[in-house]
Amino acid sequence: MSELRKNHITTGWNIIASERGKRPNDYRRQPDKKEESDCPFCEGHEQETPLEVFALRTDGSQPNKPGWRVRVVPNKFPALSLEGKAVLKQEGLFNWIPGVGRHEVVVDTPRHDGFINKLSDEELKDVLITLKLRILDAQKDPGLKYVQIFKNYGPEAGASRIHPHTQLIALPVVPQTIRDELLTAYEYFQETEHCLFCDTIQQEKEKKLRIVSENDAFICFAPFSSRVPFELHILPVSHYANYEHTDEEELFSLAQILKSTITTLKKVLKDPPYNLLIHTAPHCAVAKIDPKVACNCYHWHIEILPVLTRIAGFELGTGMFINPTPPEIAAKYLRESNENSTI
Amino acid sequence: MSELRKNHITTGWNIIASERGKRPNDYRRQPDKKEESDCPFCEGHEQETPLEVFALRTDGSQPNKPGWRVRVVPNKFPALSLEGKAVLKQEGLFNWIPGVGRHEVVVDTPRHDGFINKLSDEELKDVLITLKLRILDAQKDPGLKYVQIFKNYGPEAGASRIHPHTQLIALPVVPQTIRDELLTAYEYFQETEHCLFCDTIQQEKEKKLRIVSENDAFICFAPFSSRVPFELHILPVSHYANYEHTDEEELFSLAQILKSTITTLKKVLKDPPYNLLIHTAPHCAVAKIDPKVACNCYHWHIEILPVLTRIAGFELGTGMFINPTPPEIAAKYLRESNENSTI
Repeated sequence: MSELRKNHITTGWNIIASERGKRPNDYRRQPDKKEESDCPFCEGHEQETPLEVFALRTDGSQPNKPGWRVRVVPNKFPALSLEGKAVLKQEGLFNWIPGVGRHEVVVDTPRHDGFINKLSDEELKDVLITLKLRILDAQKDPGLKYVQIFKNYGPEAGASRIHPHTQLIALPVVPQTIRDELLTAYEYFQETEHCLFCDTIQQEKEKKLRIVSENDAFICFAPFSSRVPFELHILPVSHYANYEHTDEEELFSLAQILKSTITTLKKVLKDPPYNLLIHTAPHCAVAKIDPKVACNCYHWHIEILPVLTRIAGFELGTGMFINPTPPEIAAKYLRESNENSTI
Repeated sequence: MSELRKNHITTGWNIIASERGKRPNDYRRQPDKKEESDCPFCEGHEQETPLEVFALRTDGSQPNKPGWRVRVVPNKFPALSLEGKAVLKQEGLFNWIPGVGRHEVVVDTPRHDGFINKLSDEELKDVLITLKLRILDAQKDPGLKYVQIFKNYGPEAGASRIHPHTQLIALPVVPQTIRDELLTAYEYFQETEHCLFCDTIQQEKEKKLRIVSENDAFICFAPFSSRVPFELHILPVSHYANYEHTDEEELFSLAQILKSTITTLKKVLKDPPYNLLIHTAPHCAVAKIDPKVACNCYHWHIEILPVLTRIAGFELGTGMFINPTPPEIAAKYLRESNENSTI
């Protein structure tokens, strides 16, 4: 069974996925994958994945058979296991927790090449609804404290399969990045009674320098302290702490801005690999911060990080990134190519 | 001029290197570099680099001419500039500092293939002495608060040149990783009057599970909460806060264990790309912690991170890593191949 181990010096957690148990030779660098001729995520290949845990299906179609629009299966090589109890263990300076949690793959579409830019707004909305429902389902398990949704697009971004998919890892701890963001937002709220993210949106709207696009419910901008070139954040314009509380109408607006953002990135950067992630308010207490308080100060958002530079020794040593394209310049290029931009 | 911009939500800093000013097309993925036929770091090519700022030279040889053993030049595309004043600026929620600092390249050896495993212990000691002297030199500048030393080996680890070299970036801020490590160590010291790192060494020595090798002055082990497969840390066994205060004899011992560690990694993992970094105590105050207090609780160390897996959406979203090889297993493989291992 894998373990979550606390780094007792940085206080962050890492997952030691013993079940994957890789030996030195397993890491031998592989040549680029040949075209997948037999993709287990394609419609008609349902038997080649673990049994589905959820699907949006045509009425009357059977589980693990064709007829689905979005399909969720457990990851075949999960970083965390469903069974066991996430109890904190200690030996001297070290703390760890058995690797209990969920690791699911959301197959976005039955179509092998149904990338975000090729989905209809309705189809993309179905993916976003599925993510919401899977978060809500994971939250029913009292041992699970945070649900991280992410998408790796392209092999350089860590994708091992071409077929469009998103991943969900439900964790028995609140990750350090969420903790840090929430703590800052909490302190800001204590001081000002404002949401830090709402105030950021306000400031970006006044300056207009880094905004790429907006619609009725969402804004997309390149953050002031972007880690990587063309990093983009998408936030609901109104204050919402939790992604999973977003309603269908808003998810349709999100689908529109997300599709237009990815389409523009593809155009400007010639189909770059990217990582996409959702940050939502924890549904469990973090330090002294109750989930009800978190609802006031946290604000869910999507982060999109194109993979154009490498994370190397400087970044690993300092936690700082060197970004050769200022976000103001990135936003300008993207705005000029975004047909929906109104800036 | 580049800028250090504070992420006002995570409170970390990033460098926006405007001078590199990359446009979308500059990121077009390049094919693997062809063999460098005309390497500016090789002996005899001194005119092809910026003027040297330091070198260990044969008596009588002239600056920027052949006759050097280790040579330091400013980075041709520096992330930070020497000129200017690092004053904190603010606009609304955002803080930034002009990108003042140093970015130097230490050419480890005149030989194009003089990788760590091919240097003599004396030659490697010369590199380590040079790093020490350049840190001490950067510390003379009162505007610079931390010096990060790092080495990227192999293109997958971010190296843009084959010729063996190390980099130094002197920063006008203390990076978040150092701040976090120091704060934990400080709290531990307040509670126990012990150095957290010394106690970690003690615990590793009792267990022997994760130790790869030891010599008279240093220990190399795979850390309990390793981020990546075969991550290794090298620490002085006695309590030393600052790398730059290490004496020549100790640097010779360090050269020995470092060479043996890299040689073993090369053997076991078939010449893996890796990032190497030095963490040393800040010479400036961090939060409430004076450098004199930091000397009691911090302990300098080297971190080596082979590049065998990818940092992707989950890691960027959570700050957590998924590591498929437990450090106990990594240490065992490395111990069995390390001819100097006494465990």
